[in-house]
Amino acid sequence: MHSIKNVGLVGTGLMGAPMARNLLKTGFSVTVYSRTKSKAQAVLDAGATWVDSPCEVAARSQALISCVPDSPDVEAVYLADNGICAGIQPETVAIDMSTVSPETARKVDAAVRGKHAAFLDAPVSGGKTGAEAGTLAIMIGGDEDAFERAMPVLKAVGKTIVHCGPCGAGQLTKLCNQIICGLNLLAVSEAMVFAKKVGLDQKIMLKVVSSGAAASWAVENLASRMERRDFAPMFKIDHQQKDLKIALDTARSPGSVRLHDHDPLATPVPLPGTALVHQLLAANQAAGEGLEGTQALLKTLERLAQAG
Amino acid sequence: MHSIKNVGLVGTGLMGAPMARNLLKTGFSVTVYSRTKSKAQAVLDAGATWVDSPCEVAARSQALISCVPDSPDVEAVYLADNGICAGIQPETVAIDMSTVSPETARKVDAAVRGKHAAFLDAPVSGGKTGAEAGTLAIMIGGDEDAFERAMPVLKAVGKTIVHCGPCGAGQLTKLCNQIICGLNLLAVSEAMVFAKKVGLDQKIMLKVVSSGAAASWAVENLASRMERRDFAPMFKIDHQQKDLKIALDTARSPGSVRLHDHDPLATPVPLPGTALVHQLLAANQAAGEGLEGTQALLKTLERLAQAG
Repeated sequence: MHSIKNVGLVGTGLMGAPMARNLLKTGFSVTVYSRTKSKAQAVLDAGATWVDSPCEVAARSQALISCVPDSPDVEAVYLADNGICAGIQPETVAIDMSTVSPETARKVDAAVRGKHAAFLDAPVSGGKTGAEAGTLAIMIGGDEDAFERAMPVLKAVGKTIVHCGPCGAGQLTKLCNQIICGLNLLAVSEAMVFAKKVGLDQKIMLKVVSSGAAASWAVENLASRMERRDFAPMFKIDHQQKDLKIALDTARSPGSVRLHDHDPLATPVPLPGTALVHQLLAANQAAGEGLEGTQALLKTLERLAQAG
Repeated sequence: MHSIKNVGLVGTGLMGAPMARNLLKTGFSVTVYSRTKSKAQAVLDAGATWVDSPCEVAARSQALISCVPDSPDVEAVYLADNGICAGIQPETVAIDMSTVSPETARKVDAAVRGKHAAFLDAPVSGGKTGAEAGTLAIMIGGDEDAFERAMPVLKAVGKTIVHCGPCGAGQLTKLCNQIICGLNLLAVSEAMVFAKKVGLDQKIMLKVVSSGAAASWAVENLASRMERRDFAPMFKIDHQQKDLKIALDTARSPGSVRLHDHDPLATPVPLPGTALVHQLLAANQAAGEGLEGTQALLKTLERLAQAG
C-alpha cells in the first residue's frame, strides 16, 4: 500500500474550501472541482489544481473528499456520466462528508465498490469554524480497513474522528446529533421567550442556567445570539430542516437502513419532539427565514406568544 | 447591622441536611427543625441544635433557610400557627430554597414583610451532589439589600449566586432552567431510542455527539446512565413534573407574576415542547416510574417504539 499523496476534493463551499486549505497545509497535493468555479478561486490561489469534472478529480486522486449540500447532489457527483465513479481508481478511498440520507450512502457505496474502490460516509459536525480550524468531529461508516487507510486525510481536516459502524453508520450518527441539536434549540427558545414575557433579564437568566444541569452548547452559543437579536446563520434553518426530514423519514422506516444482517427489521421509531421542532422551524421557513440561523426559531415562538 | 451568627434551617431532607453541614463547617450556629426528626439526626450529631417548630427556628435565627418539597409545604412552614412568621424577628432574612410557584413566593414574602423581616426566593440547581459540595447554583429574587446581607449564608452553601430581580425572579429563573432541562432530556432520549432501533452502538454515538454542537449536561450525565440502564434518581420524575406543572401554569397566566409594576400584563406563552415533555413524563408516572430518575423518560420512548 502506497501512502496517500494526491487528494481530491469535490465541492469547495463553506465547508469544502477550508478543508482544502488544511489538506494543502498538511502537505497533500490537492485537486479540486466545484459546481461554481469562482468558489474555488481562493483554494486555487493557495496551491490546489483545478480540473473540469468530478471524474477527473477521481482519476488523479488516491483519496478524495466530497462535500456538497444534499442527497441528489451526492448522487450526481458520484453517479453522473462525468462523476466520481467514472474516474475512480481501484483502492482509492472516497470520503463523503455531506449530510445525506443513509440510503444515498448505501447506493453510492455500491457503485464505488463496483469499481473496486472504497467508500466512507463521513458527515461532520463543527460548522465553518471547525472546518477552518481543522477540528471537525467526523462520524464515519464503512469498512474499517478503508477507515484506517483514510486516517491521514481525516486527521488533516478533523479532530474527533470516530468509526461508528458499517456503511450508513456515519449518517445515522449524524442524525442522532441533529435530533439532539434540534431539541436543545427548542429548549433554549422556549426558556428565552418565557423569560421575556415574565419580565426576567434574559442575560442574567442565561448566566445561571449555563452553570448547572441546563448547560448545553445551545445555551452557550445560540442563546447569547438570541439575546443580541443576531440571527445570522452559523447553521441555516433550511439545512437543519433537510437533516430533520432525513431523521424523521429514517425513523419512519428504519428497516431500510439496518446496519447488520442479523438486526431484526426495525419498525418505526416515534420521535414526537423532533417532529415538533421540524414543524416549528417550518413556520420560520413560511415566514421567509429559511436562510437565517437556527436560533431564529425564537422568532416563531415569539410570534406564537405575541412577544415579538 | 450585626453580622450573622445564628442560622436556622427548616427541612433536613436530601438538600437541607448537607446544607446544614456546610453552614456548621463555615462556623455558623445552626438551629434545625424538620417534619421527620430522624432525618435531622446526622445534622444534630454534627453540632446543630434541634427545636420543635419552624416558629422556634425563626425566633433563634438572624437568617434562616427553608428547603421543603412543594408550594403547600412552604406555605405551611411559613404561615401556620407555629410557622416561621410567628417567630421571625425584625431584620431577619428568610431564604426559601424550595422550588415553588412564584405566587407562593409572593404570598410568603408579603407575610414576612408584615413582620418587618426580609424574604428571598432562592431555588437551587445542582442536586444532592451540589448541596454536599457546597457548589449549588442559587437564583435569587427579592430586595438587593437583603440579598447582600444574606451573602455569607448563601456562600456557605452555593457557588454561582445570582440576584435575578425582585421577589419571584428566583423562581421564574428556576422555571427557565427546568424548561431547558426537560427538553434537553427529551433530546437525549429520542437520540438514544433512534440509535438503538437503527442498530448503532449507543456508546459510540454518545462519544461523537458529546464533542460538538449537541453537547449538553444531559448528554454527559443522563445519556450514559440510559446506556447502562441505570434509572436511579439524581432528580426524580415526580419532582420534574411538579416543576414543569408550575412552568406551564405560569406560562398560561404570566400576568399574575409580573416582576415590575411597569411591565404590561402578559398574555399566555405557548410552550409546546415543554408541554410535550410533561405529557411524556406523565406516561412514566402512569407506568409507576415517578420515583425513578428523569432519565427513565427513555423507557416511555422505548415503549412507544416497541424497543424495550
